[in-house]
Amino acid sequence: MVPRPSQYYIDQINQHEFHGYALSRWLYSGQTKFQAIEVVESPKFGKMLILDGKVQSAALDEYIYHEALAHPAMLWHPEPRRVLILGGGEGATLREVLRYRTVEEVVMVDLDEEVVKVCQEYLPEWSAGAFEDSRTTLVCEDARQFLQRSVSPFDVIIQDITDPATVDFSEAYYRAIRQRLATRGILAMQALECTVSDFEGHLTIRKEVGKVFPWLLSYRAYIPSFRADWGFVLATTGEELIPLSTGNLAARISERLGPEARLRFYGPGMHTALHTLPRELAHLIGQKSEWG
Amino acid sequence: MVPRPSQYYIDQINQHEFHGYALSRWLYSGQTKFQAIEVVESPKFGKMLILDGKVQSAALDEYIYHEALAHPAMLWHPEPRRVLILGGGEGATLREVLRYRTVEEVVMVDLDEEVVKVCQEYLPEWSAGAFEDSRTTLVCEDARQFLQRSVSPFDVIIQDITDPATVDFSEAYYRAIRQRLATRGILAMQALECTVSDFEGHLTIRKEVGKVFPWLLSYRAYIPSFRADWGFVLATTGEELIPLSTGNLAARISERLGPEARLRFYGPGMHTALHTLPRELAHLIGQKSEWG
Amino acid sequence: MVPRPSQYYIDQINQHEFHGYALSRWLYSGQTKFQAIEVVESPKFGKMLILDGKVQSAALDEYIYHEALAHPAMLWHPEPRRVLILGGGEGATLREVLRYRTVEEVVMVDLDEEVVKVCQEYLPEWSAGAFEDSRTTLVCEDARQFLQRSVSPFDVIIQDITDPATVDFSEAYYRAIRQRLATRGILAMQALECTVSDFEGHLTIRKEVGKVFPWLLSYRAYIPSFRADWGFVLATTGEELIPLSTGNLAARISERLGPEARLRFYGPGMHTALHTLPRELAHLIGQKSEWG
Amino acid sequence: MVPRPSQYYIDQINQHEFHGYALSRWLYSGQTKFQAIEVVESPKFGKMLILDGKVQSAALDEYIYHEALAHPAMLWHPEPRRVLILGGGEGATLREVLRYRTVEEVVMVDLDEEVVKVCQEYLPEWSAGAFEDSRTTLVCEDARQFLQRSVSPFDVIIQDITDPATVDFSEAYYRAIRQRLATRGILAMQALECTVSDFEGHLTIRKEVGKVFPWLLSYRAYIPSFRADWGFVLATTGEELIPLSTGNLAARISERLGPEARLRFYGPGMHTALHTLPRELAHLIGQKSEWG
Repeated sequence: MVPRPSQYYIDQINQHEFHGYALSRWLYSGQTKFQAIEVVESPKFGKMLILDGKVQSAALDEYIYHEALAHPAMLWHPEPRRVLILGGGEGATLREVLRYRTVEEVVMVDLDEEVVKVCQEYLPEWSAGAFEDSRTTLVCEDARQFLQRSVSPFDVIIQDITDPATVDFSEAYYRAIRQRLATRGILAMQALECTVSDFEGHLTIRKEVGKVFPWLLSYRAYIPSFRADWGFVLATTGEELIPLSTGNLAARISERLGPEARLRFYGPGMHTALHTLPRELAHLIGQKSEWG
Repeated sequence: MVPRPSQYYIDQINQHEFHGYALSRWLYSGQTKFQAIEVVESPKFGKMLILDGKVQSAALDEYIYHEALAHPAMLWHPEPRRVLILGGGEGATLREVLRYRTVEEVVMVDLDEEVVKVCQEYLPEWSAGAFEDSRTTLVCEDARQFLQRSVSPFDVIIQDITDPATVDFSEAYYRAIRQRLATRGILAMQALECTVSDFEGHLTIRKEVGKVFPWLLSYRAYIPSFRADWGFVLATTGEELIPLSTGNLAARISERLGPEARLRFYGPGMHTALHTLPRELAHLIGQKSEWG
Repeated sequence: MVPRPSQYYIDQINQHEFHGYALSRWLYSGQTKFQAIEVVESPKFGKMLILDGKVQSAALDEYIYHEALAHPAMLWHPEPRRVLILGGGEGATLREVLRYRTVEEVVMVDLDEEVVKVCQEYLPEWSAGAFEDSRTTLVCEDARQFLQRSVSPFDVIIQDITDPATVDFSEAYYRAIRQRLATRGILAMQALECTVSDFEGHLTIRKEVGKVFPWLLSYRAYIPSFRADWGFVLATTGEELIPLSTGNLAARISERLGPEARLRFYGPGMHTALHTLPRELAHLIGQKSEWG
Repeated sequence: MVPRPSQYYIDQINQHEFHGYALSRWLYSGQTKFQAIEVVESPKFGKMLILDGKVQSAALDEYIYHEALAHPAMLWHPEPRRVLILGGGEGATLREVLRYRTVEEVVMVDLDEEVVKVCQEYLPEWSAGAFEDSRTTLVCEDARQFLQRSVSPFDVIIQDITDPATVDFSEAYYRAIRQRLATRGILAMQALECTVSDFEGHLTIRKEVGKVFPWLLSYRAYIPSFRADWGFVLATTGEELIPLSTGNLAARISERLGPEARLRFYGPGMHTALHTLPRELAHLIGQKSEWG
């Protein structure tokens, strides 16, 4: 008889829900200057990165999260050459961005050098060589400091930070991001759960970002290891992103990622499916829905 | 200081995961001839119906589940007049079906009369008067028996049964369903989790149904109170359901549900979004994906 | 197949431990001016009273807690006639005290009238008629207020209050208790977990009480529904309580409770066993142990 | 702010209770031919040994379990020279036995060589050099086989095996133990929870052992890391063990363990306290209580 699992990671998802994940191994545990890091292995989701008790990504489905975060902005932009990633210590957002032939430079700014090192050692499949790419510049610094001292413009800025609703991200911060965006630039960011039962954090982010960026689009994807439909926000400095047809998207994917490119989650049809929100959810977060 | 909640419903989702829901009230608890029934209240999801320890639906989002189950089949069908519902004790699938002006008769067959009664008493918002509609016939009987003795054909058959993968639903059972479908009839069924981490039950259902029905389509919707992307299966006796354009769908909704109809989850765009599956998931369950 | 229980009471025992109790019924749930009350039923422990998320007593073993709280003081005292109970809303401490033929008057002071009423309605086996006893006076008032306005002396004062370490019980409070104790009077109180892994709360109580009472004795009993060895403290105004021999105790029990009295937990041998502490525990809480 | 712990060991104590222990480190995880081994660290209990999902002992309080298991038999016996330990892979029962100056030889028989090795590497404080003592013989073999091939008699046999109620320990097994006991020999064994809420396993052991040994004595000690009063059974081949006075015990401890010996849990008074059972518990397991 196989004994019932006895080791668990328990995520206190919110005040009223917790989720337990059986574990089979505990690979790393440490405390950096900024946060607690754990790398564990679940029989169901494979290796998992946990920061301050919250799962960041898991081997089984990290591609869903990272494709959903990177590709809508990267494909919607007319020609993404220079990309800035804020956070993203695992290196998987970087990996997705570097697939683009148009990309000439990616600057990745992560506060916590130790997280990057632990990921490189324990989760090398996440970055898959991205840190060694000649187009990559890794900067270990606070995003706010970097934004203030940086001067060059970026076509796409991707924010991949643990919980942007709890960090002290003021209007000034988003204004600094806006100033780093080139003309026609796009900001993409992970933006917490986005469901009819948990949308408050997402809404907070929309409000903060909306003070600086006049055009916003929320979309969401189901991440199995988060047990949630996860929200993302696209923002531009003014111009509305015009819906792309399935054919147009397929052509862009082929041109920019190569004719053989086969993403594991994202695709031309998924592009539209992602931002087709349930009407009631759209209403709750203040986004125009398909019903008007 | 508000004390931390101390009463929980814990769902042992699978061998490796459990989910805890704080509870604020316990409304009903009983044991029928067939199963254990509990009606509880969660601060997050409102009233919840739990059968044999598994959540069936919750006040906050039952409309997502029931709209996703009923409308794709009801709108795809050219003219649904006679509908059969197998299971669906809460009466909410019935409620959605009765919205259609085309519908002349709905037969609902649920094994467990006590479940129906408890839902009528404790969850009247779910059925919202549907049991009193003159077009409704409620039959408390085993679905297999009903299918054998019934002779008239149905345009749409909706199976809304707890766990069709664990019930002894043989090929003979699905053959009986097929025999009750009218020409151009559609079978729609709830079909368990449908994610890259949990698809085995869904796959089992596809295989069983696929022995009898030559054409199948899997789709899924995120149900917050299930903490999962939930799967559904459409099946026809042979003819492929041709994709409907957004305009065509909007027109059908207007014609069949009335010009003022505003569903809370489903809509013309959502129709297509539902069956746009992540490529890897499509591969795992054997459905053609958008990438071919 | 019997389904696995799905409803639980989870007690967050301390920062590093939680305990889950399967539940079969939820009998009462309410919020008074002072606290949240729940009466639930566990297949293992029977009915349980839960205040602010902490179990107070359970049908299966409330006699252990209440016998352990009441009898050592009541038997050690030379002739307990007047008894004051602070807290003890269930009425079970009262029940134990009223067993004594020597007792002429018991005043029970509980802050929360609603708790007393809920216990009378849902847990009548706990008080077993004690509230109707002509020797009983129930006062619903803050213990501090009562102590200030009361003038008559008590032979035994029993404090049966949820968590005396977290309540604002100052030196002044214990001084007021001392002033209400008659010559040779004894204070008995429940005093939280008393184990080598959790003794800090108990120690805090000892320190506070020890500022006012020169002689203290800690003892403990295992309460199954608390999943802990539970601590109690006896205190006197100065005189050390001389160990009573087993024979002497047996005689006192017979005289005071009647020759047929058979307690379910406490007895002559148990009296000594209760305050025989593990040496390391005695050291941690600063009580002289059997090793000196 | 210190983040809330997120890694837990969950012990499904019985069908109706589970207990969660926060973990800070995971030191070892493996699968032997016989069982799953885990060595973890809890902020509360320190290092813990877990076999097949059940905690065996913890750094904070293993001395309670091991002193309670070894000393009553070792002190009650008139002169323990040869001791047999069945199980006890941690080496801590061995450590306690080797404290006795009377002991000339200890044979420890543990089925699982890997458990012994893991304990020696990860939990060396448990055995504290006991495996290197010249009086120790370690045999890695099934207890039943050893008992059949062994011929020499033992004064004390201590059974320290995971769950003797679930192992296939037939009457024949206990008969083999009895045959290895010297005249006036004593069997001591760990015997599961022994509380009014969980006594069935203990009772099963008493019944099995009672078929072969005419005199039995149950006693119990609270083990914080088990969150339970734990039961033990003493058995003799016929002669009742006469109660030892506190003075007599103190003298024996001094003679056998040295005048400076200070045990951390056990002592002359504790000896009697251990087998002073609550009357109702005594009744449930069929042991004569102090009330007769």
